[in-house]
Amino acid sequence: MAGGGDELKLLGMWASPYVQRVELALRLKGLDYDYVEEDLGNKSEFLLASNPVHKKVPVLIHNGKPVCESSVIVQYIDEAFAGTGPNLLPADSHERAAARFWAAFNDDTLKKASEQALRGKTEEEKAEGKKKAAEALEKLEGGLRDCSKGKPFFGGDTVGYVDVMLGATLGWVRATDQMQGRKMFDPATTPLLAAWAERFVELDVAKAVLPDVEKLIELAKMRHAQAAAAAAAAQAS
Amino acid sequence: MAGGGDELKLLGMWASPYVQRVELALRLKGLDYDYVEEDLGNKSEFLLASNPVHKKVPVLIHNGKPVCESSVIVQYIDEAFAGTGPNLLPADSHERAAARFWAAFNDDTLKKASEQALRGKTEEEKAEGKKKAAEALEKLEGGLRDCSKGKPFFGGDTVGYVDVMLGATLGWVRATDQMQGRKMFDPATTPLLAAWAERFVELDVAKAVLPDVEKLIELAKMRHAQAAAAAAAAQAS
Repeated sequence: MAGGGDELKLLGMWASPYVQRVELALRLKGLDYDYVEEDLGNKSEFLLASNPVHKKVPVLIHNGKPVCESSVIVQYIDEAFAGTGPNLLPADSHERAAARFWAAFNDDTLKKASEQALRGKTEEEKAEGKKKAAEALEKLEGGLRDCSKGKPFFGGDTVGYVDVMLGATLGWVRATDQMQGRKMFDPATTPLLAAWAERFVELDVAKAVLPDVEKLIELAKMRHAQAAAAAAAAQAS
Repeated sequence: MAGGGDELKLLGMWASPYVQRVELALRLKGLDYDYVEEDLGNKSEFLLASNPVHKKVPVLIHNGKPVCESSVIVQYIDEAFAGTGPNLLPADSHERAAARFWAAFNDDTLKKASEQALRGKTEEEKAEGKKKAAEALEKLEGGLRDCSKGKPFFGGDTVGYVDVMLGATLGWVRATDQMQGRKMFDPATTPLLAAWAERFVELDVAKAVLPDVEKLIELAKMRHAQAAAAAAAAQAS
């Protein structure tokens, strides 16, 4: 219960960074909520009815009404509870636009490049993905410089919208760093982002929300083994 | 000039639906602006300096400060000129979330499926794209039903955020309809969307902003011929 009679329920899955965005936003605003873990292999009727378009987590149910899509939900929380806790989006229109721009950059450009670097079909495709990801990270470094204006976070002195959107990915970033023997936010090439990531994971709210890196690695290995077995079975049949 | 000393300049390209979103928003709000046509084959230094991350139009320059990305710019216009003209996003938080959800659905799910239907590498891929596009349109039909609540537009009685985001694509939708001998918003399968599209293109603001369908078809044919010539040249060398 969020106080004032507001009922908040979050349909999630423990390893989803999209769900963690919503959890970070709810906790930063100081809102209480009920968390319901979904089995994505056997989705509940409630999830399917609450998000009939995408059938995905996260879904936030506020007083019975569902809101879907992580970026939409985080903005919804900020607007619907404008009087509660800190604002996630800046008050200034131009700064709000910059925050939305960098959040979209993360979800489009950086995500696409990172996925190509990891899962490109050929070594050539992977190499191209790595190059694109390096360029995207360099641009995001500039985005952090511009948004933070020398302060610790994209949101300035406090965690804001871009911090939430990017910070929620840090569980998987660190798991992938460990599995790949790399460092995505490398202090040598993107010192501001590297320091930001170190700072973010040390926040109480991040410690409460981000999943354990070893558990993510275990899940990744299990998924990899399942995919390999399915591919082998398809080839044998 | 937008009045009150506000200076608005839009860097655009006449055939870009993303640019037309911004023009629709500016005109709906009753804001004056200077329009600068960019040659995308030879981008101006001003464009490259104003949008160094994506190097794309549209860019809106408001009192010297650039804002990039059409969805970000339209929301910026709505917020920075909240006291001017009608609001594009609804006042209610839940309705705002729904508007952002359907705008994102259009730019992600529907766009991806439509592109696959038109430009899939094989006939099988194209057929799969068509099926996905039909499913996406059916969902969008439901979105229009929910958002409009029986009124003419996604925004209700007046044109809102989703109308602007989707309506700006109607130039290319009609050009592609004509070239492909199809009807994307088919009255038989999506009667609400079909009626909405007919209504939208008849608006004065749409007539002022949407490019001539014949000119778009000419551009598409020219681009197609250029691509074919480049492919033939690559094969010959």
